[in-house]
Amino acid sequence: MAHITLPDESLPGIVGLFNFRPETASSLRWLADTLLRGESPLTSAERELIAAYVSHLNDCKFCHMSHASAAMAHLACDLDQIADIRNGFQEIPVTPKLRALLNIAAKVQKSGKEVSEEDVAAARAEGAIDREIHDTVLIAASFCMFNRYVDGLGTWAPQENEDYRAMGQRMAFQGYIPSVEKVAE
Amino acid sequence: MAHITLPDESLPGIVGLFNFRPETASSLRWLADTLLRGESPLTSAERELIAAYVSHLNDCKFCHMSHASAAMAHLACDLDQIADIRNGFQEIPVTPKLRALLNIAAKVQKSGKEVSEEDVAAARAEGAIDREIHDTVLIAASFCMFNRYVDGLGTWAPQENEDYRAMGQRMAFQGYIPSVEKVAE
Repeated sequence: MAHITLPDESLPGIVGLFNFRPETASSLRWLADTLLRGESPLTSAERELIAAYVSHLNDCKFCHMSHASAAMAHLACDLDQIADIRNGFQEIPVTPKLRALLNIAAKVQKSGKEVSEEDVAAARAEGAIDREIHDTVLIAASFCMFNRYVDGLGTWAPQENEDYRAMGQRMAFQGYIPSVEKVAE
Repeated sequence: MAHITLPDESLPGIVGLFNFRPETASSLRWLADTLLRGESPLTSAERELIAAYVSHLNDCKFCHMSHASAAMAHLACDLDQIADIRNGFQEIPVTPKLRALLNIAAKVQKSGKEVSEEDVAAARAEGAIDREIHDTVLIAASFCMFNRYVDGLGTWAPQENEDYRAMGQRMAFQGYIPSVEKVAE
């Protein structure tokens, strides 16, 4: 049971919260879509991996599993590979640049002030440009919000990899904005 | 110096970042405006106090000072009162309900999972309704994002109360959305 009464308790994680408060849902959905699927020098797979990794560090099951499933959809990987995100990317192919960006994301998860000039220099040494550093920091920061929103209101999360397959496919290929809002735009 | 090259280094905190990446700025500005100035059973002063308090807990000078200044503008208080936010609200009049919501916000600042059924029950016992609990959690969560964005990219912050007076007035009474976007809406 969530800490507040949601219009539809069957909807898990942030989906039930979007339903509770559509005004904030709209900004949050647009933010997610811009960050994870909008124009960026990082691929959507890389950005979903950052989102899933930070959500794991924040111990947020719903966000971790759903964004990990979206990353697997982009990468055309089996859902079993999700565990590798929690194991520090030993099997999923991660470029040295992405590894340096994941290090920055892990610092952001603790505090913005944890990101050092050395962390940024290490990412630049692997070829990261300003927009990649910016997007990494904002994706990591935004999941420190999404994760706290989802868990701070006590929402429920499906437990199995398979429960997230269709959700991850939708997130990866249809995105985060309801089609009615896209048309209005 | 910020960790990335911003188009206008003279712009402090999140303002310089909005300028760097207008696509994400738009969602972030709408989110802030909806959360802090949109329709809510909490007053804008109360919501700005929650934002300023969480930003203090995250040690983010720019967000703390600017939102504290916005709160003072709503309350028609002297900027010297900002220090009281950092001192745990000994002088600023805070209702028992707001105090219970600030406790929830402080839990969210640590982790969404820190919010207990007891914390929520304590807020309800002081009269808090679902929308107030929801908005408190999302404001606190969103400032865990804004604070990390601002500090994770190493932006600069003005130092003195007085430096934030005009900014706080604008945030309180004109809001967070550039007028051109409001017209387009």
